[in-house]
This record gives sequence, C-alpha cells and structure tokens, in this order.
Amino acid sequence: MTDTQVGIIGAGPAGLVLSYLLHLEGIEAVVLEARSREYVEQRVRAGVCEQPTVELLRELGVGERLAAEGLPHRGLSLRFDRADHRIDLAELTGKAITVYGQQEIVKDLIAAHAGKGLPIEFEVSDVELHGLDTESPRVSYHDSEGNARELNCAVIAGCDGFHGISRPSIPAGELTAYDHQYPFAWLGVLARTPPSHEELIYTHHERGFALHSMRSPEVTRLYLQVDPIERIEDWSDDRIWHELEQRLETRDGFSLREGPVLEKSITPMRSFVVEPMRYGRLFLAGDAAHIVPPTGAKGMNLAIADVRNLSRALKALLCDNDGELAASYSDRCLRRVWRAEHFSWFMTSMLHTDPNADAFQHRLQLSQLRYTASSRAAATSLAENYVGLPFDRAD
Amino acid sequence: MTDTQVGIIGAGPAGLVLSYLLHLEGIEAVVLEARSREYVEQRVRAGVCEQPTVELLRELGVGERLAAEGLPHRGLSLRFDRADHRIDLAELTGKAITVYGQQEIVKDLIAAHAGKGLPIEFEVSDVELHGLDTESPRVSYHDSEGNARELNCAVIAGCDGFHGISRPSIPAGELTAYDHQYPFAWLGVLARTPPSHEELIYTHHERGFALHSMRSPEVTRLYLQVDPIERIEDWSDDRIWHELEQRLETRDGFSLREGPVLEKSITPMRSFVVEPMRYGRLFLAGDAAHIVPPTGAKGMNLAIADVRNLSRALKALLCDNDGELAASYSDRCLRRVWRAEHFSWFMTSMLHTDPNADAFQHRLQLSQLRYTASSRAAATSLAENYVGLPFDRAD
Repeated sequence: MTDTQVGIIGAGPAGLVLSYLLHLEGIEAVVLEARSREYVEQRVRAGVCEQPTVELLRELGVGERLAAEGLPHRGLSLRFDRADHRIDLAELTGKAITVYGQQEIVKDLIAAHAGKGLPIEFEVSDVELHGLDTESPRVSYHDSEGNARELNCAVIAGCDGFHGISRPSIPAGELTAYDHQYPFAWLGVLARTPPSHEELIYTHHERGFALHSMRSPEVTRLYLQVDPIERIEDWSDDRIWHELEQRLETRDGFSLREGPVLEKSITPMRSFVVEPMRYGRLFLAGDAAHIVPPTGAKGMNLAIADVRNLSRALKALLCDNDGELAASYSDRCLRRVWRAEHFSWFMTSMLHTDPNADAFQHRLQLSQLRYTASSRAAATSLAENYVGLPFDRAD
Repeated sequence: MTDTQVGIIGAGPAGLVLSYLLHLEGIEAVVLEARSREYVEQRVRAGVCEQPTVELLRELGVGERLAAEGLPHRGLSLRFDRADHRIDLAELTGKAITVYGQQEIVKDLIAAHAGKGLPIEFEVSDVELHGLDTESPRVSYHDSEGNARELNCAVIAGCDGFHGISRPSIPAGELTAYDHQYPFAWLGVLARTPPSHEELIYTHHERGFALHSMRSPEVTRLYLQVDPIERIEDWSDDRIWHELEQRLETRDGFSLREGPVLEKSITPMRSFVVEPMRYGRLFLAGDAAHIVPPTGAKGMNLAIADVRNLSRALKALLCDNDGELAASYSDRCLRRVWRAEHFSWFMTSMLHTDPNADAFQHRLQLSQLRYTASSRAAATSLAENYVGLPFDRAD
C-alpha cells in the first residue's frame, strides 16, 4: 500500500499533463496505465495542437521537441465546388496550429516524468476505485507483475478515456449523459509518403468527406467518410487510394501522393458528454468525460484544457484547503466542452455528406460552405474555434 | 386587348418595385393584382427593411416617408440565460435596419405609380398565363368589372407570392422544388401599445421562442412560437399576454406593455425554393419562387433583391436585345436566396425550442447562443446577414 495525493488513472495526454502540472505545483501524484509504455508511445490519435495547447506544453518545459519537429500551420483549406478556399488562420486570428502527433506529446511527457523520477506504473490491471464519496478514496489494482496493490489518495483523476473504468465507477444516476451518433465513420490511413500539400485540406465532395492531413514531412494522414457499418477488411489499399483520388481530385497544383499504408482503421463518429465531470473526490478529465467527432481536431486539446483547470482546482483544494475551484471545476470545463462539441458538430455537418439529408439540406450546406469561405466574419469564427479559444474565454 | 412590354402579376413589394424600376428604365409594364388596393395597403406582413432595401427605395425616390417615419435600429437583443445580449449591428457592420411595415412600402409605391399614371389593375380574377415558351407570352384575366381581358407582353414577371398562379403555370417537371417544414408556427399579435423596448428582442426560452418587435411608436408586434396544429380560436388575448409575460419575463428595465390586440394569427414556418426561377419568358421573383421562415426577416428583402436583378436583366433583354443577364437571372438570385435560406434556418434553429431535439441538441443550441453573444466574429456574422449582405456580394 502506498499513499499519494492524487491518483491519476490513465497515461494519455490528459493524465500525463495533469501529473506534470501537479508536480510543478509541488503536489504528489501516481499515474496508473493499463497499457505498456511502448503501446501508448506508438498509439496514433490526434495530431493537431491548438495554440493554447502548444503554449501550455512550452510553459511546462516539455515543448522543445514540439517546437523543433512540430509543423506549424498558418492556414487550412476547405475544398468544395471543385476549388480550394483557404482559411488564413494566422491572418484572421493572429494564431496558428501545430501538427504534432499525440504519441509524440506522450513520449515527451513520459521522458520528462522519467527525468524527474515521477511515478508512472504501466500495465496495471483490475483497477477499481473505492470510497469516492469520502475524503480518502483508494485505488486497488494489480501491478505489471500481478501483485495486488492499493493506492490511498486525497483525490482521484479519471483520465482513462472513453472506455476507461473511471466514469463507470460513478454510481448510476449521478451523471447525466448526452449522446449523439453521427451517420458516418472515418476510415483513417497512415501512409509513408510526403504530404501532397503543405496544409490540411478538408474536402466536401458528393462521394463523401475526405481529409488530407499529415504527421510529419514523411508521413501522410488521410481520412475518408464511410458508412459506420463498413468493415476495414473490405477496404484494400487500392480501393482506399482510388476513393481518395476521386474525392480529393487531381487538379492544378495538387495531385495525391501515394505510398505504403502503415495503418488503417475505421472509427464511428460520436459526441458524448457527461455532467457533472465530478463525483465526490473523483474528477473526470478528457475523453473519460466527453468525446467529440474528430472533424474539429478538438479531442486532445479539450483534455489538456480540462487538466489545466483541474490542476488549479487541486492546488487550491490540497494546498490551501480551498474547495471553491474544485466545486466549480465541472461547470468551468463544461462551458469549453460544449463550445468544442458545437464546433465539432458544425464542422462535421458542414463538411460531410449526410445520407439522411434531403435536397433542401444539401443546398443549405453548400450555401454555408460558400458563405464561410467568402465572409471574413464567418471565416474568423471558424478560425478562432479551430486554433483554440483562449483558456480564459471558453473555460 | 392591350400590349405592354412586361406583364407583372402581383402588386406586393416585388411587383411594385419591379414596375417602378422598369418605368425608370423607360420600359412599359402593367401590374395585375387579384386583391383590392385597400387590401394590399393594409396587409400586415414583414416589417424589417435591410439597409440595401432602404437604399434602393431611396434611389427610386419612394423613400421619403420611410426616412421620416421608419424606425432605424442600430442593434437587436438575443435574450437567453435570463439576460439580454445585444448585437450591435451598427458597430459590427457599419449598417442598420429600418422598421417600416411592408404595407407602408406598398402604399408609397402605389402612390408613386398613381403620381406618374403607371397602370396597376386591382381586383382582377381568372388570371392565366399563355405562351410562356414563346417570345410573345400573354395574360388572360377578368378585370374588376368582370370584362374578359388580354395582355400581350414580351415578358411576364411572376410576383404573386407563394399561393399565386405564376409558379403553377410552369409545366410540371420544369422546376425542382426544395421544401422544408419546421415543427413550429408563429402566433403573431399586433397590439395598440408602445413597444416595451426600443429594439427587437429575440428570446430563446424553454417554453418556446418569443419576439418583441414593433411597427410604429404606437403599435407593438409580438410573436410566440406555437405548435403548427394550434388554432387561433384557442388563444384568447389573455392567454397570449400571459404566455408572452412568461417567455419575455419582467426584469430590471423591461416589462411587457399590454394593449388592445388589433390582429392575431398563426402561420406555420416553412422554407421553400424552386429552381430555376425562370421558365421561357416567365420570370419568378420573391415569394412566388421562395419563402423563408420569418426569423431572419429576409422575405421581403429577398423579393426586392430579386426584382433589382430582374429589372437589369429585362433592360438588357428588351432595350439592348442582350439575353445574357436574363439567362443568368436565376443563378444570380439563387445564390442570395440560399444565403437567406441558410441564415433563416440558422436563426430559427438557434432560437426556437425544437420539440424533436434531444438533450444533446439543446446543449449545443445553448452553446451556440452563448458563443454568438460573446464572439465578435460570430456576432458579426449574424449581424452582416441580418442587415443584409451588399447586393453585389450575395447575388
């Protein structure tokens, strides 16, 4: 049995950033992770860092490699009506985004933890949370060697994602869930080939949405809207490239670069939020509390905004015995969460081809795309959400 | 049998503005109207004039009374979360709107026609259109005294509204219709009482949308969202005032002024567009081709934008024998029409309480309202659509 101040469930970006933020505040934490270090360091997920995320990581002192290897993007393109319409993020907002894989952030944070001797236990199993409604909650688990262990804490942070055990540990009836299923999924492809264009291209095409993105100067990330019932076994690499060709379309100055497919998978799109993001001494953060469709690139950024709030609340609670920020943690996070949910829904519905939409709705969608590309106000609205509203504005 | 260059069906704002524009270009027109002059001069409809509409009426020389009696509004309020959030139209766009009843514009235009001896025939019946696919179409009708008449024209302009005969005169299969029914109606009330507030208040309330508007310093215009199956007989004046009180809510600096109800009615909300807006020598304009829900205050303004386009197209066609603008008339109008359809849908869905929406969608709606009220970019986007995009930008 060990004691710590904060037990953190999950070593994704939320759990690791929280642990490191707490360390800098002089608060002890232990991170428990079901997967291996190798697994979380390789797991391909989000790749777009908002400016507030980049700034926070820099302030934490873990932004060095991000600054060196991350790809700053000052704009993105909306491709529709057979043409590209660039949204100049930097000119419209004074900010930019940085393309840098989530797994790279995880690597940097794990390295920083190792450098300071901060505890992360990988490959734990049978994690259970106890006494959440008391002031001394407890985590029981088996360590990587199968030994039964317990962690006594003052607070538990549930950062273990949508399928983690934290949220289901809260008694039935305590949370209100808001759920929305979209009638499409994303078929994601990681390919070893330089990006075909230096920026992201969000494509609205009658055959369905497609996204040209990247992870590095050598690795391209591509997505295709598919029906959620599609199986990845039915999508040969040839079929994927053929479909991407049709939607992204070769034109002046653009042709799709093909390359070996490193990874491919299909993910259904869903929005999900629970309220509140706290039960007793358990605080939920990131995907454990909410997921967004990936179209707005908001998932990881939202998780990091949550734990920034949480670290402040826990400092007040644990160092100053002031529970006010902890009491308002959920409300403050949820304001930003719903902003991101709305923006993600907006981007998703504007760009995808909805099989259930009637001809009227398709026409509205086209009008919205044309307006967004031609109105400075509308483009700025998209851009300010995309680069990330300041922490103090949408928290 | 008489001859004219343009036969105009309908003496609403579209038909009358077109007739007057053509007159100023030296083109002859005859306006045929099924109703009496008294009826069209009293018919209460739209009341919000976009800045481009006001400017056009001024240029036509029929803006004198509008300038004197119209109420210029430099802002409007979104009321939700128990507070008012003002959208400063003038500060955000440099433009304003003018509250001036449609029937007043109609009166001014009819007076202008009378002053110049321009022909408007009221109380015509049995109007039928012939030879639309020839270069000499013809209108048959009975005049107010029951005499059978015919009008030979070069062009017919269908400005006779959604229920008029122009659109149905086009052969089946020539038009594509886009139709959308909303799950709400507006119960509109005209009351003899000074407005309770100097500007419009668009209210999102859990009991349903409500709008505080006005027609003059002595006449208030109020609207309540109701179920489309509601019957006006079931809404006593007392019940209406009680419901308005609950939705608009008395608060610091605002209390609802009640007064005698002059008129009340229930109108279902619908979006409808036909493409193209032309068949042969028949050109549709305004509600004959498209209707919008009233939330964006776009209906009359769109009709006037249509006929501004049409008058230019007809001048080129009839004076210069150049059919290019006539050929592109529909496409040019439809761009603005779909912008207005989208904006009207946006305002409607953001402000009404949708009985079919789930809890997730209600939360998105609230996030959108809060964002619109707090982001300069989002507020500007609403404002620029509300005051009216310049004719050359969204035509």
